[in-house]
Amino acid sequence: MIPILVLTHGSLALELREAALKISPELEGDLEAMALPWEHEADDEKEKLRKILKRLLRRGGVVIATDMFGGTASNIALPFLEEGKVEVVTGINLPMLMKLASLRKKDLSPLETAEALQKAGQNSIRVASTFLRN
Amino acid sequence: MIPILVLTHGSLALELREAALKISPELEGDLEAMALPWEHEADDEKEKLRKILKRLLRRGGVVIATDMFGGTASNIALPFLEEGKVEVVTGINLPMLMKLASLRKKDLSPLETAEALQKAGQNSIRVASTFLRN
Repeated sequence: MIPILVLTHGSLALELREAALKISPELEGDLEAMALPWEHEADDEKEKLRKILKRLLRRGGVVIATDMFGGTASNIALPFLEEGKVEVVTGINLPMLMKLASLRKKDLSPLETAEALQKAGQNSIRVASTFLRN
Repeated sequence: MIPILVLTHGSLALELREAALKISPELEGDLEAMALPWEHEADDEKEKLRKILKRLLRRGGVVIATDMFGGTASNIALPFLEEGKVEVVTGINLPMLMKLASLRKKDLSPLETAEALQKAGQNSIRVASTFLRN
């Protein structure tokens, strides 16, 4: 499995990673997090991201999971998009990270991994009364 | 607008609320968060939730936004489901809370609010390379 880097404003990325690891400790080596300070220099953060990606790319590819499209985390991540190497998926939630546990043994590309996370994330967002009725 | 209560394991709920308020400070009075400690007594947390809901229901209704279906937060919230009063939406992410800003002036029911959050959340989860290509 390729590694996942959660990238958000504030400590959200760290809390998402911590929650995922509490539930699935086996994800430890495959799940990283980078928090953008609310007040930051974009160039400093881009350089920090570049270094993390360089390290993670030794494993063949990486998926960056950001908080939201149009946000600073996505804007910093998008220039690193590279077909077959670096993919970005937006709107990260906890169920997407939980999905990783079932992807661990599969040999998916960054795009396939991102698509699996997208599907898991979209399916995880449910209105309880509607879901329980059907 | 009815209030939203973000309910998750760990500090995720607090970080989601903090991030949303950094971006949309006007949500302050409409957005609450409750964090379940990783080690907790379910009865204590249910009682805490019951008290928060009692207070929020003075405003006519509430939507509880949880981290994931099948998780402890959802399991504690679901017994409080009440048609027209209390709705639960799972898989909370930051874009769902951002959506609240546009719902503030609307007079939506708990179910309508939950459905609007669901739609916003699902639409926010995108694979960047696919989205940018189309």
